[in-house]
Amino acid sequence: MKTEYDAAFMRRAIELAKKGNPFCHPNPLVGAVIVRDGRILAEGWHARYGGLHAEREAIRSLTEPADGAALYVTLEPCCHQGKQPPCTDAVISVGIRTVVIGSRDPNPKVAGKGVKKLREAGITVYEDVLKDECDALNPVFFHYITKKMPYVRYKFAMTADGNTAVQSGESKWISGPASREMVQRMRSENMGIMVGIGTVLADDPMLTCRLEGENFRNPIRIILDSRLRIPMDSRIVRTAGEIPTIVCAEEEKGELTERVARTGDEASSEGHRTQEQSECSSKRNAWAGGFGQNEKEKALLRAGVTVLRIPASPRTGRPDLRKLMAQLAEREIDSILLEGGGTLAANALREGILQEADAFIAPKFFGGRGHAPMEGEGVAFPEEAWKLEIMEIQRYGDDFFIRYRIKEAEDVYGDH
Amino acid sequence: MKTEYDAAFMRRAIELAKKGNPFCHPNPLVGAVIVRDGRILAEGWHARYGGLHAEREAIRSLTEPADGAALYVTLEPCCHQGKQPPCTDAVISVGIRTVVIGSRDPNPKVAGKGVKKLREAGITVYEDVLKDECDALNPVFFHYITKKMPYVRYKFAMTADGNTAVQSGESKWISGPASREMVQRMRSENMGIMVGIGTVLADDPMLTCRLEGENFRNPIRIILDSRLRIPMDSRIVRTAGEIPTIVCAEEEKGELTERVARTGDEASSEGHRTQEQSECSSKRNAWAGGFGQNEKEKALLRAGVTVLRIPASPRTGRPDLRKLMAQLAEREIDSILLEGGGTLAANALREGILQEADAFIAPKFFGGRGHAPMEGEGVAFPEEAWKLEIMEIQRYGDDFFIRYRIKEAEDVYGDH
Repeated sequence: MKTEYDAAFMRRAIELAKKGNPFCHPNPLVGAVIVRDGRILAEGWHARYGGLHAEREAIRSLTEPADGAALYVTLEPCCHQGKQPPCTDAVISVGIRTVVIGSRDPNPKVAGKGVKKLREAGITVYEDVLKDECDALNPVFFHYITKKMPYVRYKFAMTADGNTAVQSGESKWISGPASREMVQRMRSENMGIMVGIGTVLADDPMLTCRLEGENFRNPIRIILDSRLRIPMDSRIVRTAGEIPTIVCAEEEKGELTERVARTGDEASSEGHRTQEQSECSSKRNAWAGGFGQNEKEKALLRAGVTVLRIPASPRTGRPDLRKLMAQLAEREIDSILLEGGGTLAANALREGILQEADAFIAPKFFGGRGHAPMEGEGVAFPEEAWKLEIMEIQRYGDDFFIRYRIKEAEDVYGDH
Repeated sequence: MKTEYDAAFMRRAIELAKKGNPFCHPNPLVGAVIVRDGRILAEGWHARYGGLHAEREAIRSLTEPADGAALYVTLEPCCHQGKQPPCTDAVISVGIRTVVIGSRDPNPKVAGKGVKKLREAGITVYEDVLKDECDALNPVFFHYITKKMPYVRYKFAMTADGNTAVQSGESKWISGPASREMVQRMRSENMGIMVGIGTVLADDPMLTCRLEGENFRNPIRIILDSRLRIPMDSRIVRTAGEIPTIVCAEEEKGELTERVARTGDEASSEGHRTQEQSECSSKRNAWAGGFGQNEKEKALLRAGVTVLRIPASPRTGRPDLRKLMAQLAEREIDSILLEGGGTLAANALREGILQEADAFIAPKFFGGRGHAPMEGEGVAFPEEAWKLEIMEIQRYGDDFFIRYRIKEAEDVYGDH
């Protein structure tokens, strides 16, 4: 096996998987084909969250017995009871003799157990057929399950001469209508959307998905705002009652800075600070008691905002984005669309939390330097660059869209 | 006529035209097809400078009489004696009844005269069939003939986050080997290559085509160097005896600045300066007599360098790039590859001398702001951007190549 014959049917299964609604996430996209003597008997795919799995869809659409047939499936069949009964049982029951698998299931609840169960039933199993292509169907699912971190995509629109805004910061509009509609789809397809407080202060955005219909939903809004500067009358805070909103503030630093400013006793406070950061985030309220930060936090909570406190990274002195991501993953946020600004994006890259970059390149020049996709210093030598891989290329109207995978996303700051 | 039937044969003629060696320039690429009753009788294309024109190549390859046939040709047939006798005569002599033309010949020596001659001989002529596609075969030829200016292409390599170099200026290497080989081809395919003096001082480049073989040649090297700062021991000056080299200096400003520095009499010199600039560029030697600029110029001339003096633009205070381009066009330089840096490129854009931008986009991030394709201020508002049109998209290894036409290339500074 593992021949061109197998590859052809697995390719068909991949095509079928792509018919699944991207909104079936957090479930993965899966496609399945049942074949006997080179003829396709039935096809299936996982169409929506909670619906039949691809294998069962294929089995359901059989119009003749499947005895002795082969099943091609892009992901290892499940053997545990979820919203649906285990697929392995169905596969065994209809007399399938051979199962050809693309991706191994990264879910620890399954991980090889499906294959084991099939083999115990006397079925011949082949694994890793077009594995890379099958894995690529579900980057979010694989990343989230294996890393316990959200899959983070940085979306930006730039001119052909590399500008994301003119010098004043104005960026409306760089990309065309088709690109901007695609951005709305991306907002819907990601569980969360993240921006820095600078973007909120500059644009007072809603960060919702403006497309209507049952296929679209608003992402959870995540604002990185170390000092809780977000205005109470911003559109985000005013709508936080209806649209889930998380503001991420720094754990101690904000309060301490304020305290230092009032007492003038920098040395002893600094000493406290390190100790505090490492030991007692639970003492936060005691520390912040009576100061502005705590009042603002309470007001935000009353407005319906979830406030997350994250410690500063001792390496960077900035909010520790890895710790933030771990907290968001715990809240089952598997995917985040990072929309800016360039400073947050550069920090995210350096902290190793970016998996993907989605660049819209508009056919225009600003003819000089405005703002760049990444702000800050950047690498000192060209050979230290982060390496990317092209995942997808599209045209949206006159714009060009390139989706990059960030190859060294798991490297952390300091390795570059 | 002008139906899908015609379009199909014209498309074939366009394909044939592309078989021509790009080095047949300054002649245009032309393809021709002779058709009767929907059947192709013969095909031809202009293969090389000085060789048979496409129409004559097609006629030569006929294996049966062409009486009553139709000729599809991407460019209006010539009716004047050049390196080859007029094509109209040949077309008439073989009994062709219909001629379908893509581009009209922009050459004032031909311009409609070919069509007129064919019609006078009783031939039915249709013009402008797939005109845009046919025009696109020969952007340099059309631009140079109609504008009497070189066709200028700005080539740059940038990272996916819009950097052409890290902060130190180091840019070796952003793009991969396949892209860099393509750049060598581009050097060969353009009559001239232009850089600013900053690039020479930083890199001491040769600016030659490093590919070997009869299809490759070195471009004429053009250095924009207002104050004649180019070192006598630079590789460019040392090889100027063998490889044509033009250094473009400012006409008066350099000398005046020096004079001012020696006399300290700024006010009167400034008064003189404006007068000098507008009236008497021929007095340059008198003005510069005995000063460094003139000595340097003489040394450069002895080394084989051609020194062009160009006046400063009263609008920008910088060397007037439009006047420089007009001088280069007079020297029959029809095409120029502008390789940097970003300041020169931005000035070229603002001065309206750029026709094309050739961007290599490498799959990597620098993760911050180094150098941008265009340096300087840029537009104040997004809606003032220069508009581009995608001409071509290619992969070169891991890199992405986009060739843009600059739509408003003829606008001059101040219209934006």
